[in-house]
Amino acid sequence: MARALSHYNGKSSFLSLSRSNPCHPSPSPFFTFKPMMVTMAHNSQSSSYWASIEEEIEDHLKQAIPVRPPTAVFEPMNCLVFAAPKTKAPALCVASCELVGGRRAEAMDAASALHLMHSAAYTHENLPLTDRPDAKPMIHHAYNPNIELLTGDGIVPFGFELLARDVGPAQNNLDQVLRVIVEITRAIGSRGIVHGQYNEIQGTQSDDGELCNDEWIEYVCKKKEGELHACGAACGAILGGGSEDEIEGLRKYGLYVGMIYGILNGVGRKEKGLVEVVEKLRALALEELESFKGSSNVESISSLVEVNIFNV
Amino acid sequence: MARALSHYNGKSSFLSLSRSNPCHPSPSPFFTFKPMMVTMAHNSQSSSYWASIEEEIEDHLKQAIPVRPPTAVFEPMNCLVFAAPKTKAPALCVASCELVGGRRAEAMDAASALHLMHSAAYTHENLPLTDRPDAKPMIHHAYNPNIELLTGDGIVPFGFELLARDVGPAQNNLDQVLRVIVEITRAIGSRGIVHGQYNEIQGTQSDDGELCNDEWIEYVCKKKEGELHACGAACGAILGGGSEDEIEGLRKYGLYVGMIYGILNGVGRKEKGLVEVVEKLRALALEELESFKGSSNVESISSLVEVNIFNV
Repeated sequence: MARALSHYNGKSSFLSLSRSNPCHPSPSPFFTFKPMMVTMAHNSQSSSYWASIEEEIEDHLKQAIPVRPPTAVFEPMNCLVFAAPKTKAPALCVASCELVGGRRAEAMDAASALHLMHSAAYTHENLPLTDRPDAKPMIHHAYNPNIELLTGDGIVPFGFELLARDVGPAQNNLDQVLRVIVEITRAIGSRGIVHGQYNEIQGTQSDDGELCNDEWIEYVCKKKEGELHACGAACGAILGGGSEDEIEGLRKYGLYVGMIYGILNGVGRKEKGLVEVVEKLRALALEELESFKGSSNVESISSLVEVNIFNV
Repeated sequence: MARALSHYNGKSSFLSLSRSNPCHPSPSPFFTFKPMMVTMAHNSQSSSYWASIEEEIEDHLKQAIPVRPPTAVFEPMNCLVFAAPKTKAPALCVASCELVGGRRAEAMDAASALHLMHSAAYTHENLPLTDRPDAKPMIHHAYNPNIELLTGDGIVPFGFELLARDVGPAQNNLDQVLRVIVEITRAIGSRGIVHGQYNEIQGTQSDDGELCNDEWIEYVCKKKEGELHACGAACGAILGGGSEDEIEGLRKYGLYVGMIYGILNGVGRKEKGLVEVVEKLRALALEELESFKGSSNVESISSLVEVNIFNV
């Protein structure tokens, strides 16, 4: 049965913007965040598959970041991590691991780290600086800027700690873990998300948005969402013991998935030609899954690009 | 021959605040940063030892962060990394590695990563936020706040990349590299430098500085400088193949060294009882080196705590 699953509003959804979250104690006049206009159109088997992965990632993160003393540190960290809107990058990491024959547990730290990195980037992206005090006024700020800055600064190393801390010399996948660390540093760093954020700001601050053409939209989405999802898919395949071909195929799949979500949810959603760009990316994405035909869960994985577009 | 080596002003000194640095094109009325009032009092052999280490770290960093395209990313990164005031943590990392019998090259990535992490923390600490627009007016800002925020965000993952990227499955020290990554995540994270920064701000913003007692000063210096230096010393010993006793001894030595420099250079330099606290820390530090007596370079390493205090 086809079913529309809201990108942000699933009841048990990982990291949903719940009103009971201490970050968002009550609706605020400044809190005008709108639910996404993109829905995934897939069958109930695929829905269950993604829901079960997201639930496990959420549990893993909850165990990793309990609110414990010093609460001045861990309460904001917990809050900002779970308030950041989810992306599909962590779930894609786990799904890729399973697709190449790995166990779900093998990708859980990497998936959690990916969400941690994303939540830190999201927090800093919305930080009111003196040269952009109201850059993103639609975001509810649960803490003052200094706390949000420091919390973001604490989340990133914690993500890397999560990846590296439970790996002992007796394990034989140390090189995989180090490779995943490098993958994540590149996806979130100066040539990845940070470069996307820089270009996004340059564009939106240009005169009459003159820089914001189609090419700019694709580039920003590639750097911000595309490479994070590419990284997630590649890391899952690495940790699941996939071949180099599998890793690179899934990396490309992740890139297109991330760009599709970036374009639909983000900067470019009111742009002309959107449907054509998304269709092109969807076709490219599905091509990358060709070689996995017949594998378990490949249908669920391909459902990520079966999106309905409303109100664009 | 005893010689006073300024903590910031050495001519060829790694990361000195040189006027020819593009970050600091000319003296600015807002740029009132004063040279440190702490000098190291040690003989020429020790001076040469530290100078040679710092020169190698600087070369290593210069190779790691050339100004290359996209210059919008790498020019600020290069600038902010080399403009941040140096600490002794990177050099201590290399010295500890050598003290336990390792080769200097084995600690070079970790030493560079330690400076990268410090420079990112320093950049963010001085970022003008809307709730602290002039928190640190003495710092010259070469870029606007958004660029400085993003650059700091890019430097941290690059530090981890540097640690992990050249390590292949053929190497037999992968577990050491992962252990060093965990050490660094903890030193810079929410229970390390970030917690120190949080406490420093809480104290300095308290009514009439009522929170800024001796206990507070020691705690802030422990978290900010102490644990970074402890981490540096421990990482060097880990990479040099030191025993657990050696690692822990050098970790404690680094902690006391960092606290001494933190107290003398930072928050507490006008505090009563300063000399007594520094003397206590110096004695504790030297105790930790007892077991290394007779080892090569132990005298140079101990020179780190032979500081002269002026104008305090």
